[in-house]
Amino acid sequence: MRRIAVLTSGGDAPGMNAAIRAVVRKAIFHGCEVFGVRRGFAGLIEGDGELFTLGSVADIIQTGGTILLTARSEEFLSPEGRAEAFASVRRAGIEGLVVIGGDGSFKGALTFHAETGVPVVCIPATIDNDIPGTDYAIGFDTAVNNVVDAVNKIRDTATSHERTFVVEVMGRHSGFIALYAGLAGGAESILIPEAPFDIEAVCRKLLRGVRRGKLHSIIVVAEGAGSAAEVAREVKARTGFDTKLTILGHIQRGGTPTAFDRLLASVMGARAVELLLAGERCVAVGVSGGQLRHYNLAEVLAERKEIDRELYQLAEILAI
Amino acid sequence: MRRIAVLTSGGDAPGMNAAIRAVVRKAIFHGCEVFGVRRGFAGLIEGDGELFTLGSVADIIQTGGTILLTARSEEFLSPEGRAEAFASVRRAGIEGLVVIGGDGSFKGALTFHAETGVPVVCIPATIDNDIPGTDYAIGFDTAVNNVVDAVNKIRDTATSHERTFVVEVMGRHSGFIALYAGLAGGAESILIPEAPFDIEAVCRKLLRGVRRGKLHSIIVVAEGAGSAAEVAREVKARTGFDTKLTILGHIQRGGTPTAFDRLLASVMGARAVELLLAGERCVAVGVSGGQLRHYNLAEVLAERKEIDRELYQLAEILAI
Amino acid sequence: MRRIAVLTSGGDAPGMNAAIRAVVRKAIFHGCEVFGVRRGFAGLIEGDGELFTLGSVADIIQTGGTILLTARSEEFLSPEGRAEAFASVRRAGIEGLVVIGGDGSFKGALTFHAETGVPVVCIPATIDNDIPGTDYAIGFDTAVNNVVDAVNKIRDTATSHERTFVVEVMGRHSGFIALYAGLAGGAESILIPEAPFDIEAVCRKLLRGVRRGKLHSIIVVAEGAGSAAEVAREVKARTGFDTKLTILGHIQRGGTPTAFDRLLASVMGARAVELLLAGERCVAVGVSGGQLRHYNLAEVLAERKEIDRELYQLAEILAI
Amino acid sequence: MRRIAVLTSGGDAPGMNAAIRAVVRKAIFHGCEVFGVRRGFAGLIEGDGELFTLGSVADIIQTGGTILLTARSEEFLSPEGRAEAFASVRRAGIEGLVVIGGDGSFKGALTFHAETGVPVVCIPATIDNDIPGTDYAIGFDTAVNNVVDAVNKIRDTATSHERTFVVEVMGRHSGFIALYAGLAGGAESILIPEAPFDIEAVCRKLLRGVRRGKLHSIIVVAEGAGSAAEVAREVKARTGFDTKLTILGHIQRGGTPTAFDRLLASVMGARAVELLLAGERCVAVGVSGGQLRHYNLAEVLAERKEIDRELYQLAEILAI
Repeated sequence: MRRIAVLTSGGDAPGMNAAIRAVVRKAIFHGCEVFGVRRGFAGLIEGDGELFTLGSVADIIQTGGTILLTARSEEFLSPEGRAEAFASVRRAGIEGLVVIGGDGSFKGALTFHAETGVPVVCIPATIDNDIPGTDYAIGFDTAVNNVVDAVNKIRDTATSHERTFVVEVMGRHSGFIALYAGLAGGAESILIPEAPFDIEAVCRKLLRGVRRGKLHSIIVVAEGAGSAAEVAREVKARTGFDTKLTILGHIQRGGTPTAFDRLLASVMGARAVELLLAGERCVAVGVSGGQLRHYNLAEVLAERKEIDRELYQLAEILAI
Repeated sequence: MRRIAVLTSGGDAPGMNAAIRAVVRKAIFHGCEVFGVRRGFAGLIEGDGELFTLGSVADIIQTGGTILLTARSEEFLSPEGRAEAFASVRRAGIEGLVVIGGDGSFKGALTFHAETGVPVVCIPATIDNDIPGTDYAIGFDTAVNNVVDAVNKIRDTATSHERTFVVEVMGRHSGFIALYAGLAGGAESILIPEAPFDIEAVCRKLLRGVRRGKLHSIIVVAEGAGSAAEVAREVKARTGFDTKLTILGHIQRGGTPTAFDRLLASVMGARAVELLLAGERCVAVGVSGGQLRHYNLAEVLAERKEIDRELYQLAEILAI
Repeated sequence: MRRIAVLTSGGDAPGMNAAIRAVVRKAIFHGCEVFGVRRGFAGLIEGDGELFTLGSVADIIQTGGTILLTARSEEFLSPEGRAEAFASVRRAGIEGLVVIGGDGSFKGALTFHAETGVPVVCIPATIDNDIPGTDYAIGFDTAVNNVVDAVNKIRDTATSHERTFVVEVMGRHSGFIALYAGLAGGAESILIPEAPFDIEAVCRKLLRGVRRGKLHSIIVVAEGAGSAAEVAREVKARTGFDTKLTILGHIQRGGTPTAFDRLLASVMGARAVELLLAGERCVAVGVSGGQLRHYNLAEVLAERKEIDRELYQLAEILAI
Repeated sequence: MRRIAVLTSGGDAPGMNAAIRAVVRKAIFHGCEVFGVRRGFAGLIEGDGELFTLGSVADIIQTGGTILLTARSEEFLSPEGRAEAFASVRRAGIEGLVVIGGDGSFKGALTFHAETGVPVVCIPATIDNDIPGTDYAIGFDTAVNNVVDAVNKIRDTATSHERTFVVEVMGRHSGFIALYAGLAGGAESILIPEAPFDIEAVCRKLLRGVRRGKLHSIIVVAEGAGSAAEVAREVKARTGFDTKLTILGHIQRGGTPTAFDRLLASVMGARAVELLLAGERCVAVGVSGGQLRHYNLAEVLAERKEIDRELYQLAEILAI
């Protein structure tokens, strides 16, 4: 394989740049050229991008976002769009493709491979951490730390005013951010899409805490668990507590990546190149059982990633 | 003066604890006792609090919020409430009062002094920085840095997706946070209550930036300048840009105070004690002209604090 | 088991408080009392400590250091000292012991159990991450992020002055911090005790980078790899580059723990209690293969933890 | 004036990039061209640099260091060197010069102007804050916050081990960083070059604190106040306390600038351009009395900046 391409697709995640850097440097180390594609699959269709050098990825390991830019491409969803992308790939002499993104990007890569035979290796990168086949996706650790940092700030003001705060975090289909950040942030309650909750039980727990002398309470709610605004209203109505709502929004997504995400991105990026060079044709990289592994892309996408129930129960116990 | 009291009132601000520490230690240094009142004027009415020692304020200079807690007191707004507070103050042998808070707290202190003759010294602490008589209130610098940090994070994702972000920050009546954080964060536009804005001009500027190659734009909107959601909708409608809204909310208020706020709080807290000991009866501490000063409380409250127009124009020029 | 004790021993590590919190709350949840021992084994001898309540560990999950304090105890190294500790343990009605610390603490716990039969469960907590039986010790992730943050700061000044920086990090016997932080920080070279290095090769790499246009270089050196000062002198002598030395020291050890360390500490603390209640008598908790496990304490201590060679080689490749 | 040049010189300081950005954008706003000189006066001699556009300074307001690079130039110290620089300046059509740096850079600019008549405006930027004519130099606020952050980290480990820490900070001739960061960090003692200290008194204070129940002590020492290592040895010898030394080094200098430094740099950079355009020929910008001002360069350099004695005494009182 003499020339590969790399692109980032879907929502950006901190650590994508560290992954790009690893792909570029590892490939060049093995004598392979790397074409950096701009704006994801849209750029693949248009042939938008350039050949990267070792220096193209200097001083980016510490930066959030993605230097390759990212976009959602309507066109790539159609067979015609993908055919154009294939034509563009052939013109550019690209023999393999590294796709860094979430599960929508994985699906695009799978279809593209199935239709064109272009070898693809996918790297999981999404703050939601909802991709099967890997315990951790790039960006998740940073997002969790961003949320924990915000919860720390909110706790100061919550304590001073003896208030209850309802904090909405990202996670439309999964409660990973809510669970990890809620546990690490010492939240009194954590509401996630994977577990139905009883607002009455949530309130009982708050009342018990206050009786024990707690000066504040924090309830972390994943987007997909229900309306955080509704939770705040209900808590206020049932407990009478001064209850405030905060929606963390896009600050969760940004910032310099943590060491964990930089390392994960570095090893995954390097492994993706090795897999392409070793002749793999349609796989995803992942971490499971503490090991870097790879999986058949179609099989991975057929699974659904489950949240750790024991961790959820532990959060309940520790927030007594 | 053998015993003074200190309380925090209104919204909490990072650095309040550093001010409390300074009041307590400086007073004890001069042989004076300090009664720490809990929950602001409400606690003053109830006599809720305790005598503080040097150790009571150990290891709090770095913490956000206020160890004295804060609350709004309906009761203190009535003459009967204030009479109760006075009775409570006399019972506790308190001969002077340090009030740390915003302009609502200043007004309460002024009325209390006028009715009871109890000497009061006020220390400005509010992230909004809208108190006349001082260039800087305690908490403002930390809040601005919190917003700048959030803008940095949002910029990563804004660039990656080539998006426009509308960021709503605190400031119902004044644009200090928006102006300072917008300028320091390199925002493309800053909308504040003190200056009417023309959404068409805002959009023209965005379009000009994009023509020049800008990959993202950030518009910082103070709460009081108008609806940030409306701004986002209008920008999207008029420019066609992918535009997102983020409301920073309570994370602006919290966190460990900056060095600037800790120092400001320390010198203001110490000065407040000196003023009480020197026989001042109704003043506020402030920084102006680079100097620590004090003002007649009634006179300060009659003024209105203006934003720096030159700084606002500079922000426009630098964000070209 | 109706009453257990918990102590922290050896060097402090961020996340120890989160582990203490988990031990206390999980034990109380199961109807068990927890005696918090102050100053490690020294406090065990003296019976120094107190019974903890749910509230004793409120608001500590986010704090660095250890509320139980830590110390090295000469006395506990002798059979007489341990006999005294045993007497003290019996007096206090303690039926099981959770020891949070590094491998010195593990050895102490093992000997104590062997001589007295008191059930012990050890939790690995050391920023050096050099304890066998676990992939990650509590505190390591925070320390690595602290170092990466420092490297980011140093990079700014290194670039501006086109300098080479030699950064000494902790790790007398192992290069975990150096390797992880060096890789995540994008260091040009990483020198660790586990791999002999050739200063000439290090210099050649620096010269190659500069020829390619690099404006700065950073060399991360673990304490145990040799003298960082000597490395700085040699680099300067052989390359002629303006070379500076920075010894990071104790800032590596402190600070609020990362989300990762808080979670690790929480699950390990909870598991330690479960193991004691389940009748385990002499084990250590660990994470390996992505799973929380436990090991016979004697067997764990007989092993030596190896660094990941592939990761080391990858760092070389990515820093081309 | 149709073309001006801007350079950074001496040690780098966070916020230099924000100043460069302000100079470039403000000048272009007024229809003036800006030549960005690389590597300070050395680059001026060689004509090393390029014409900057609005886009040249995009996304740098948040970065530490200086994109213009900085260096010390032996050559510029000689009349021949300066004559060469003048020839180069004329060739490039440069009609005015903005110099961003510390007092060594100011002296170079003064001599250059005296010999050649080229108008110069200096902007104070040095973390040491030892430039007369301004209360604050660019970079100082960031450096103080960096030190305060390090002290916070050290405090965690100091408390856990009940240790005394001696922390050496920058400041060969002045104690600004030590005083501000020591006060804001709650240090027990602060040793600065401007005030002789009595090690016996320092130790007495430590002993008093421990008797009162303090679990740790932190002594901040400015480089110029004497050997921090010697202080640590003496404290250990006289008190018997477990005493550790930490030298913060270059981490003080780096990192993303605070909001304060970005604002200061922005207003100073803009004002420098205004002054050149208004016909000023040899001045420095400064902040004093809370106002942005400018001073005759020769007069400023004749003064010596004094530390605030009252602040120093306050630090003593608050650290009781």
